[in-house]
Amino acid sequence: MANSIKVRVPGTTANCGPGFDAVGIACTIYNDLELTLCDQNGISLKVKGEGAGYIPADESNVVVRAVKMVLNKTGHQAKGLQLNMVNHIPLARGLGSSAAAIVGGLVAANELTGRHFSKEELLEMATAIEGHPDNVAPAILGGITVSIMECGKVKYLRFLPPVDFLMVAVIPEFNLSTRAARKVLPQTVPFPDAVFNVSRTALLIGALCTGELKLLLPALEDKLHQPYREPLIPGMTQVLAAARQAGALGSALSGAGPCLLAFANENADEIGKAMVQAFNVNKVKAKYQILQIDRQGAIILS
Amino acid sequence: MANSIKVRVPGTTANCGPGFDAVGIACTIYNDLELTLCDQNGISLKVKGEGAGYIPADESNVVVRAVKMVLNKTGHQAKGLQLNMVNHIPLARGLGSSAAAIVGGLVAANELTGRHFSKEELLEMATAIEGHPDNVAPAILGGITVSIMECGKVKYLRFLPPVDFLMVAVIPEFNLSTRAARKVLPQTVPFPDAVFNVSRTALLIGALCTGELKLLLPALEDKLHQPYREPLIPGMTQVLAAARQAGALGSALSGAGPCLLAFANENADEIGKAMVQAFNVNKVKAKYQILQIDRQGAIILS
Repeated sequence: MANSIKVRVPGTTANCGPGFDAVGIACTIYNDLELTLCDQNGISLKVKGEGAGYIPADESNVVVRAVKMVLNKTGHQAKGLQLNMVNHIPLARGLGSSAAAIVGGLVAANELTGRHFSKEELLEMATAIEGHPDNVAPAILGGITVSIMECGKVKYLRFLPPVDFLMVAVIPEFNLSTRAARKVLPQTVPFPDAVFNVSRTALLIGALCTGELKLLLPALEDKLHQPYREPLIPGMTQVLAAARQAGALGSALSGAGPCLLAFANENADEIGKAMVQAFNVNKVKAKYQILQIDRQGAIILS
Repeated sequence: MANSIKVRVPGTTANCGPGFDAVGIACTIYNDLELTLCDQNGISLKVKGEGAGYIPADESNVVVRAVKMVLNKTGHQAKGLQLNMVNHIPLARGLGSSAAAIVGGLVAANELTGRHFSKEELLEMATAIEGHPDNVAPAILGGITVSIMECGKVKYLRFLPPVDFLMVAVIPEFNLSTRAARKVLPQTVPFPDAVFNVSRTALLIGALCTGELKLLLPALEDKLHQPYREPLIPGMTQVLAAARQAGALGSALSGAGPCLLAFANENADEIGKAMVQAFNVNKVKAKYQILQIDRQGAIILS
């Protein structure tokens, strides 16, 4: 059995407006992970790109936790790990860097130890580490996912839309922890706000399933999390509005933010520039990246 | 121009578990309406079937209101109306009898006065009378609809599922006004309950769009309206559970109730009997009817 493997895992955008904690989309932005199991003790880590100099080489690293979960479950005797990462997914911005790290570790270790686990089992393991399935599901499966927790188990639907679209991800310079973004959420919400999100979520999934993208504009409206997170992201409302004014199909917070996402058929560069400028007006530096849906999820490179 | 027309309008089930106020399905249960415009003043009404003896022959009748809305908007000079109804949709049970009445009146009057209004315009008018679009949309359009109100306008998606299924409607003997069923709803809900419904609604629409019907069981769960309405419908929880135990794909309250609905691939009779029996145990008389999706919506018969 080989003792070294390279995997590629997509970044993901979750929530997608009203679909809080349920909807996720895999995006064409990737982290590559080369994992080597070795006989010498210890963890060796090399990181290029996003997170270089920040990602720790110990058990607090979620890649290490993911790899060790597989090794423990399979009874594998590897003493040490070498991790070689080339990361394009920005850290703690709302593009699923943590989910990609977990999925990379699980998929690589599963491949090196004899593929004991199915994708469904890897999804359960990834959810156990991440705490929720909405980013790890599309990172493993690709496409668009709806995932729920039912009696401690993940249930999901994965689909591809019948038409293509672009996603303009605008990434501000500052980061925001999911924990901080969760702290601002309320304990109760007005009944009409809950009903509002139910209807928009229904429209969102229907629009994505059928390709009726002109419905994305009303379908991306949200009253459950974005209004509460707005104070954490200077200029959020203006940036989302700038995207729509520049011709986006709709716009939303990506995951827990601070990345903001616009859906588009065309004019993606103009939309990206308008969003960056709206951030700049609010004294936030930002860049944009034009993404598509990743259809494969995590893959083995070699 | 003819002065008499006959239309057929399907019953509808709305909410469908978590999709409160948004999701509707047209069903193969129908009301027929023959409308005649005449020169003599007054309203003449004949009703066979459901509602015979109860439906009023004046402006409080929503069919009359719907017909008059079209006549007023088109400036038609008819002085009197003859309405001849053959109704199969039970009244005030949660199967869209009010929506069917409104849509029947609008479609018949529109046809008789020269088809001035598109289906979209009829939907706006029906929503204005009914107060919400979730039943009138599938009654007009057929199939499954997701509808929202946006700045006073209806936006909707209409689709047909790629696979067939049955709906077992269990109709208890007592009726329940939508107003009474709305009164028991709370003003605020716990944040996790709102998130719960968002995720189940996403799964429900995804399952119906893609035909992944095995997901209906978790996808039909609801925490926003059914738990609050349970006290209004003796035996509701047992009847819904009886459906699942008898092999249903899932079960939910139909509209505001008291009708309960099970989704099924097979064993529809067994499911219906089990549900009726569970109602009987709770001292409620009930009958069941096996329905399919109506794909056409309101049609002109002659």
